[in-house]
Amino acid sequence: MKALLLVAHGSRRAESNDEIAALADRVSDRAGEQFELIEHAFLELAEPSIPDGIELCLKKGATSVTVLPYFLARGTHVVEDIPAEVAKKQQEYPDIAIRIAPYLGTVDELPDVLLALAVK
Amino acid sequence: MKALLLVAHGSRRAESNDEIAALADRVSDRAGEQFELIEHAFLELAEPSIPDGIELCLKKGATSVTVLPYFLARGTHVVEDIPAEVAKKQQEYPDIAIRIAPYLGTVDELPDVLLALAVK
Repeated sequence: MKALLLVAHGSRRAESNDEIAALADRVSDRAGEQFELIEHAFLELAEPSIPDGIELCLKKGATSVTVLPYFLARGTHVVEDIPAEVAKKQQEYPDIAIRIAPYLGTVDELPDVLLALAVK
Repeated sequence: MKALLLVAHGSRRAESNDEIAALADRVSDRAGEQFELIEHAFLELAEPSIPDGIELCLKKGATSVTVLPYFLARGTHVVEDIPAEVAKKQQEYPDIAIRIAPYLGTVDELPDVLLALAVK
């Protein structure tokens, strides 16, 4: 079973974290056969952590986990912190395929998405 | 002349700020007739500021400015800080239409964008 773990920064504001949970639900509604399980996790300031999010996917039966950084810029969080958190679990489960997808800021369609939003 | 001002948070890392400038250029390439001028600005930690970004648009001949928050969550920056910065310039130029577009995190297509990214 393929799982997608949406990873956001995490906030002290519960509403911001709730937005991520709601987004994960919306992704789940759209996922079809690509991913049978969609979960979310936070790098810091909120729960579940990235290792806990990966653990949850595995407990639910995932045989592979794609970690998607819901981040706009290629900062330290994307380059170092998220890979470090993921590596902890990969070491613990060497037989499970855990990969990190490109971060949101790399999406080719962003200009068109922004232009559509600007005239909304 | 309609201007679009892409507003990001701003970072201490020059590379992150450069990503925003590059994104504004890509938006400009795609803009067509909707917006004749695309600029970018930062809420904090980098230049130009939001008021300076709006001023730049007006100096280049803009008669209206759409401010688009390049933010993922509806936090204090989106709810209070960006409107406060925009309001300063609106007071200075009461005859110019300055509006704030919905922030990036509200885009309906985000789930599909994320799923496409996850299998990339």
